[in-house]
Amino acid sequence: MAAGRFLFFSLALGALGSLCVLLTVYWVQHWRGGFGWVDSDGIFNWHPVLMVAGMVVLYGAASLVYRLPQSWVGSKVPWKLLHSALHLAAFVLAVLALFAVFRFHSQKKIANLYSLHSWLGITTVFLYACQWLSGFAVFLLPWAPLEMRSLHKPIHVFFGASILSLTVASVLSGINEKLFISLRNQTASYPSLPVEARFANTIGMLVVVFGLLVLYVLLASSWKRPEPGALTDRQPLLLERE
Amino acid sequence: MAAGRFLFFSLALGALGSLCVLLTVYWVQHWRGGFGWVDSDGIFNWHPVLMVAGMVVLYGAASLVYRLPQSWVGSKVPWKLLHSALHLAAFVLAVLALFAVFRFHSQKKIANLYSLHSWLGITTVFLYACQWLSGFAVFLLPWAPLEMRSLHKPIHVFFGASILSLTVASVLSGINEKLFISLRNQTASYPSLPVEARFANTIGMLVVVFGLLVLYVLLASSWKRPEPGALTDRQPLLLERE
Repeated sequence: MAAGRFLFFSLALGALGSLCVLLTVYWVQHWRGGFGWVDSDGIFNWHPVLMVAGMVVLYGAASLVYRLPQSWVGSKVPWKLLHSALHLAAFVLAVLALFAVFRFHSQKKIANLYSLHSWLGITTVFLYACQWLSGFAVFLLPWAPLEMRSLHKPIHVFFGASILSLTVASVLSGINEKLFISLRNQTASYPSLPVEARFANTIGMLVVVFGLLVLYVLLASSWKRPEPGALTDRQPLLLERE
Repeated sequence: MAAGRFLFFSLALGALGSLCVLLTVYWVQHWRGGFGWVDSDGIFNWHPVLMVAGMVVLYGAASLVYRLPQSWVGSKVPWKLLHSALHLAAFVLAVLALFAVFRFHSQKKIANLYSLHSWLGITTVFLYACQWLSGFAVFLLPWAPLEMRSLHKPIHVFFGASILSLTVASVLSGINEKLFISLRNQTASYPSLPVEARFANTIGMLVVVFGLLVLYVLLASSWKRPEPGALTDRQPLLLERE
């Protein structure tokens, strides 16, 4: 029953995540000149798409590996490898997305890292790198003592949720910023809310919904791997102590 | 010991929260023309200050009432009243902040609710209203059955954390947006990172740190009211099931 509900929830999350990526692709394809590696706008357009695909959707999927009912029994190692590999893939997409925006700035002679969006985004990717490396060192390499693992686990889970929240905040400020810049000198400016603005604002709100659903499954749902000695197997985490 | 650490942490959080508000006041006072109720910029300037003071700092304080060691023993009712009253005060500040920006738009003939920042912000305040009203109906009014309370509790805690996260995202996109608009036609534009831009970006990053610290105490720390029948009294929430 719990497994069935989880499957349904995962399919819904997968559909919503794919929709976020597809709508971002449609946005840059239809209104912002599509993709390329030579002309500057074409280069920039990889940035939002790779960030939404990597830091939001793939990150969400990677975070929820331990909520799969199949991962509840047997060895944790294959699930650790999957969790770590998916996060590495998400991180690589984020780095490519950063590369795209730096290349775009360099071609257009625009300063790097001036906006709050960029400060927040680069901090988030830096925290992600720290999170991945510390997770790898503590949970995957064999020589970390058990005590260190159990001390690091709540920090790892907390930063996992925090990095996703900061990513969502980065995406929202990024879409907002891009619309302010792109629609500045057009007849249909941002305040007149043309179709593009409504479309991209909607992407932002869908990313919020996706992020909240992932955080719900991660922090508050009952789909958790039962630990040996746990009081009950399926009690929601937030219910236990509140 | 735990109480001493909590006191130290609370003082640090209080200092950081006050710093966020003071820096926001300094920003609008020094660079944006200060406060007023007649000239349009003076009206607008209440918006960021009241939002940071209400939806971030007072919200954070209100959320952490049940983490006070004094609240761990005895009747919950006075703490519920304090929690609810502080949140009501934070909500009133948020409504005044919205009033300020709508009045500013109306004076300057600027459209309302066009940017993603505004969509996100208004959604966050709407969720806050729902959260306060449902909390009041379920936890403060006497006729909700116990079962409904325990069902609603994890949802209330989850949305409590989510609304704070969405608020931080709103503040960040708001500061970003304000700097793009205000520094547009100035000699020292946003990309040249004048002192004002660095100052306001820093406020945004401090708000992020404040939000993360509040979420840590709320979700992952060991400063929780021990529930009757809990396995241990001081075990961190995120450690228990992970």
